[in-house]
Amino acid sequence: MRDAYVVGAGQTAFGAFPRESYRSLFATAVERALASVDGLDRGDVDEAVVGTLGVGGRQIGLSGPAVTEHAGLSVPTTRVENACAASGYAVRNAVQAVKSGMADVVLAGGYEVMTDLSGDAAKYWLGVSGETEWERLTGTTFAGTYAQMAGAYAEAYDATVDDLSRAAVKNHANAAKNPHAHLGFECSLDDASGAATVADPLTLYHCCPTSDGAAAVLVASEEVAAEFDDTARVAGVGAASDRVGLFERESYTSIPASEDAAATAYEMAGVGPGDVDLAEVHDCFAIAELLAYEDLGFCERGEAPELLREGVTDADGDLPVNVSGGLKAKGHPIGATGAGQIVELWKQLTGRAGDRQVADANLGLAHNVGGSGGAAVVTLLEGGA
Amino acid sequence: MRDAYVVGAGQTAFGAFPRESYRSLFATAVERALASVDGLDRGDVDEAVVGTLGVGGRQIGLSGPAVTEHAGLSVPTTRVENACAASGYAVRNAVQAVKSGMADVVLAGGYEVMTDLSGDAAKYWLGVSGETEWERLTGTTFAGTYAQMAGAYAEAYDATVDDLSRAAVKNHANAAKNPHAHLGFECSLDDASGAATVADPLTLYHCCPTSDGAAAVLVASEEVAAEFDDTARVAGVGAASDRVGLFERESYTSIPASEDAAATAYEMAGVGPGDVDLAEVHDCFAIAELLAYEDLGFCERGEAPELLREGVTDADGDLPVNVSGGLKAKGHPIGATGAGQIVELWKQLTGRAGDRQVADANLGLAHNVGGSGGAAVVTLLEGGA
Repeated sequence: MRDAYVVGAGQTAFGAFPRESYRSLFATAVERALASVDGLDRGDVDEAVVGTLGVGGRQIGLSGPAVTEHAGLSVPTTRVENACAASGYAVRNAVQAVKSGMADVVLAGGYEVMTDLSGDAAKYWLGVSGETEWERLTGTTFAGTYAQMAGAYAEAYDATVDDLSRAAVKNHANAAKNPHAHLGFECSLDDASGAATVADPLTLYHCCPTSDGAAAVLVASEEVAAEFDDTARVAGVGAASDRVGLFERESYTSIPASEDAAATAYEMAGVGPGDVDLAEVHDCFAIAELLAYEDLGFCERGEAPELLREGVTDADGDLPVNVSGGLKAKGHPIGATGAGQIVELWKQLTGRAGDRQVADANLGLAHNVGGSGGAAVVTLLEGGA
Repeated sequence: MRDAYVVGAGQTAFGAFPRESYRSLFATAVERALASVDGLDRGDVDEAVVGTLGVGGRQIGLSGPAVTEHAGLSVPTTRVENACAASGYAVRNAVQAVKSGMADVVLAGGYEVMTDLSGDAAKYWLGVSGETEWERLTGTTFAGTYAQMAGAYAEAYDATVDDLSRAAVKNHANAAKNPHAHLGFECSLDDASGAATVADPLTLYHCCPTSDGAAAVLVASEEVAAEFDDTARVAGVGAASDRVGLFERESYTSIPASEDAAATAYEMAGVGPGDVDLAEVHDCFAIAELLAYEDLGFCERGEAPELLREGVTDADGDLPVNVSGGLKAKGHPIGATGAGQIVELWKQLTGRAGDRQVADANLGLAHNVGGSGGAAVVTLLEGGA
């Protein structure tokens, strides 16, 4: 089957934008994606796939068509939802649509507006990404789910709170160079480890913010891509599901869906973890970044803290991870996150990443998780096209 | 690109099932789909696409993986939502996945539980399929949206209440032969026209019920399909979106998204409306069936009442429509409806439709609408394979 390429991409800043709506944010992301590629316009887009969790206060049914109409696109639009992995799956669907021959250019994106809910409502909001009957309704917050993983990991591998904090410190440092980041400021190890506890052992600095934002990616056939510069080939994409409830899984120190999705993506691309030059991984909580290193094969089990201590995944390390700032500091507008990772990879692979540009990166990996691991999708993008 | 085939399909009855859950219903549909094809089991399924609106009381985020895990499927699962067209789009996504070469066997299905909400909540429920800000929140019920179409149609073409009722009478007569129908009883023209008004000119008998139910379809590559009997080729599939709010459209006497989706499906299949042998169309309200005849090209504008009067679309007519009973009388568990239409077509095309079997049908059309026409999808299935 023919190859699919990312030929353009754009996003809004992630943050708190009380004067924007879910429609205006999405329309801005579409506008920027189209503006990123010279010679492609709305009329060239064959269909759209929109990821959002979108649980309240806005259009629920038909929210996909509701945002594409506002963005000036009159195309078949499908809404997909897999909690925090919504737009990672949207990009995958776009790849399938292009490879199927049923579309030549597909816009895949996502959005979320989250900052208009206060305290308890916001907790509820994220909780819907976990299991409903036996986790959320019995009082488990979403941070509490990942805290259980952090506790199990610390016990299994003698990891410390500082080991978690190093992921946050790195990602805040990266976000400080990203004009689109929600929390674009640096923090120290003491800031992170000494902050208020949200769900033991996770502190405030180990948790991503709730953000508003949107992102959009243009996926095209190889025939269309040949007409443009600065394209990136979708070398592989893999997805996997698992039991939605954490309590139903055997392991709390890995996310099996991430492992499965990565295995599929690596196989499709004919590469291995050692070939990856940079990665955007799903660090909704600091522990998630550590698990990602191991689930994606960047290191052995229990070695993630060492990778962080040695600076391997720093922006200037051998394998930069979350140079965008990650969910932790770039922000996490749920439905926009997966597509936002692809936006970052495409910018990095085509030399458009400004102050945070990574040198000589050819193969980028995006890793997007739904809930506490009920779904995951891994995408490999190859530059130099 | 390679062809996709429906190789098996199954559904629960549609109705009110207070002792079932959204998970148990979906699992039953999957079980029946797998049982319908000898030699295909869970291990052969590569991925799943699940359609549901699913607005409250159950799993919201990750509801796709939540139902596939209960059905015993450990496969990548994507939830899609396009209001009442959710699983029509799910089937389309499955076709793309198969044609892309990324999957050989995809389970596409959908479910909804609706009867656990009473009066006002149920009205709200369906209302989320319309436009939120300027329709639902200003007091327009979902029936009210279609009532505006019915009023405009009656004025444009001198149609009568009896013209609407004939669609309901026909579909109730068909449902009486369908053991899976929610309202499997006949009604007279006087019953339908004389019933209480829900939203003028629509009476109770012009409105579909709110139902519980699930449906599942197995879509496979031509290589896999060659191993099985009783398959139906997906000859064409088309989708389209439109302004979500009815008030934003120029015409109230057609659903342009249906026209566009049909044009795409016909072109892909290389056929026209005259080639269709039987159809399942989206008759959420009686007026919707009349508009469907015209939008799908079964007759000219304004001629739908004549088709009904002449019995053309009766079960024994030249072009049987909604032999299942349609949304009107088979029932309308939102997320299950589109896949349920494909289940019916597959049964008809493979001679499994029991008392309601249509003779010599080779090309079947399914027409699934989201909301009041913000989305539509049309699928053409060819039997005799």
